[in-house]
Amino acid sequence: MQTIKTVAVLMLILSGFNHAAADSLLTEKKRFELDQFTTFGGKTIRQVQVGWESYGELNADKSNVILITHFFSGNSHAAGKYHPDDTEAGYWDAIIGPGKAIDTEQYFVLSVDSLVNLGVHDPNVITTGPASINPDTGKPYALDFPVVTIRDFVNVQKALLESLGISKLHAVIGPSMGSLQAIEWASAYPDWVERMVSVIGSGYMDAWTVSALEHWATPIKLDANWNNGNYYDGEPPLKGMTASLALITQNAVHPDFINQVNPEHQPIETAALEDIGNSHQVVNWLNQLAAERAKIADANHILYLVRASQLYLAGQGSSLQQGLNSIQAKTLFLPADNDLILMPYLAKDTHQRLRSLGKNSQYHEISGPLGHLNGVRQIDQASTVLSDFLASE
Amino acid sequence: MQTIKTVAVLMLILSGFNHAAADSLLTEKKRFELDQFTTFGGKTIRQVQVGWESYGELNADKSNVILITHFFSGNSHAAGKYHPDDTEAGYWDAIIGPGKAIDTEQYFVLSVDSLVNLGVHDPNVITTGPASINPDTGKPYALDFPVVTIRDFVNVQKALLESLGISKLHAVIGPSMGSLQAIEWASAYPDWVERMVSVIGSGYMDAWTVSALEHWATPIKLDANWNNGNYYDGEPPLKGMTASLALITQNAVHPDFINQVNPEHQPIETAALEDIGNSHQVVNWLNQLAAERAKIADANHILYLVRASQLYLAGQGSSLQQGLNSIQAKTLFLPADNDLILMPYLAKDTHQRLRSLGKNSQYHEISGPLGHLNGVRQIDQASTVLSDFLASE
Repeated sequence: MQTIKTVAVLMLILSGFNHAAADSLLTEKKRFELDQFTTFGGKTIRQVQVGWESYGELNADKSNVILITHFFSGNSHAAGKYHPDDTEAGYWDAIIGPGKAIDTEQYFVLSVDSLVNLGVHDPNVITTGPASINPDTGKPYALDFPVVTIRDFVNVQKALLESLGISKLHAVIGPSMGSLQAIEWASAYPDWVERMVSVIGSGYMDAWTVSALEHWATPIKLDANWNNGNYYDGEPPLKGMTASLALITQNAVHPDFINQVNPEHQPIETAALEDIGNSHQVVNWLNQLAAERAKIADANHILYLVRASQLYLAGQGSSLQQGLNSIQAKTLFLPADNDLILMPYLAKDTHQRLRSLGKNSQYHEISGPLGHLNGVRQIDQASTVLSDFLASE
Repeated sequence: MQTIKTVAVLMLILSGFNHAAADSLLTEKKRFELDQFTTFGGKTIRQVQVGWESYGELNADKSNVILITHFFSGNSHAAGKYHPDDTEAGYWDAIIGPGKAIDTEQYFVLSVDSLVNLGVHDPNVITTGPASINPDTGKPYALDFPVVTIRDFVNVQKALLESLGISKLHAVIGPSMGSLQAIEWASAYPDWVERMVSVIGSGYMDAWTVSALEHWATPIKLDANWNNGNYYDGEPPLKGMTASLALITQNAVHPDFINQVNPEHQPIETAALEDIGNSHQVVNWLNQLAAERAKIADANHILYLVRASQLYLAGQGSSLQQGLNSIQAKTLFLPADNDLILMPYLAKDTHQRLRSLGKNSQYHEISGPLGHLNGVRQIDQASTVLSDFLASE
């Protein structure tokens, strides 16, 4: 049987947090507010708030900015610790910090909580989405919140950067859904972006990936407590969220990882044989993990994150060709070779299309037992590739 | 937009049925009954009925029998047509018939509907499971039906064969869940089985696959209509079944296939951008396909098929080593190189373990755009390998 401690450790792995290194820097969550925001779809959201963090110092001519964009279930805690006694540091602490691949002695590194962030009930997340109070009604938006896109995440980040007097990014770098944002930055605002790094990402969603993501939404909609998104006065759809997060975990890792943590179950499990109502140990383990994560999440936010991801096309315009062609940045693609959700053919195809458009693009695969999550947990293997890319002219 | 016709064609592909070749043989569904059956788990089921089909003729010494065991969502219609004007033939018609790899001029080929078969409401399926009437109560068993295992499917087949005076199999051959049955035959009844072919299969379920299969059950249990399995007097959980079958389809194919049928969606889909309640076209396509398949299925049967598959360990005993060691048959493994549900590492590991036990085992990968379903739809590429294997001493 898996112990609670194992579940806790696994939750940290799946959340992408690192055991804090001795040299982790200190950071704090800050708040950015916009009175009004117009979405890519043409809708207005009042009183937008997002959290953000930074590491390192902005230089005098504001030319040393690196923006980190986070993954689907992540937030802006990309590196460092809030307090010296935190046991865990931000998800990419292995590559962000003094003397690391993204060297905070050289760069001002910044990260922003996304709109419709998954971790609404995480005290270290500040976001605006369906769970937020609609200032026009005094009640949560629920499904009245407009559909938002990766471009909207980017536009909120841009507004924050502009509020700091920044108008140029030395680089924008992100894993998974963060990669979509990084590519979108390079396509929508080519004058801003000098270098773009897509980690476990893609320049577009193909049909297979769109339908693969939909299965993350389905269990939530099947939970009677979801009630068409109106559950803020009652019980949240915890069963549906747990099922959704269990499937997200399943898709985000590779068999090697689940099989390492759950050794071969031999002989066959008696409980599962005796009663259809019982489950296998690995199922109980995965569900326990997912139920813990569901506590800080919001079901509608998951639906909106799925939709933003599904709608992704570089440039969010009329074609992939057009979206990629507007990119001026040097680009680097770092897919995971055994990724089962954003499979490496997506990054490879995006890279090759850029090359055939005459762009400067590099491609390098990362590996490990974690599948997609190698891009979060095993990123240190790309340290040299990353630091060389950031140093290149 | 996908047309109804496209959906119909795709349903046939996913159901594994072939456009009938001119030389397809004719067959009919027959019924086999057992007054009483004791499960591997020690429970008793009265009045078990299953359907079966055969192709070719049993020879005088009953030495030419090949048993075909079917996949998760399949049934015993492995080859041929019921009527000359059927537009489709059984799922492996490409390799079963006169002069084909499994030559019905030489072999008596036989196939049996599984217990707890998915297609309860298919007029060509005869099965016993939770949807069947419990003779003790006069009502459907629902979850009172005992958990059944791959061994139980085998034991029903064995009872049918014995009723025909058969005590030896020239070969047992099956794809996917049918492969589990084929391996189980070779392990549990080594004196019966001379040759075993595992197509897109495995000698065991590892933890990753057990949890991957669980996600097929989850949507059903979330549907309020499921009502803990008691829906036979009311509305069946069609939404949950549709979600389950959509995920099964997603897992059973490869991105290449879904992307071929659903070309790149550029520009981004306006409906999905405008309203969180709308879906992408590929999602609607997949759901329409799944909803059609749900009409002939039973939700509880899906749960029992998932459990039978999850519980699989060759020999259903105390260890994989023990289960494989009892195999005397020559074995042939034919995994699909891009299978995303029973990944080829499972077949390769089973094959290698047999070799290291000194067994006679062969391994050959098949390919194509269909992922797991290459083992059903693209099986003709293995015709020579198969016929050579069947002819070998």
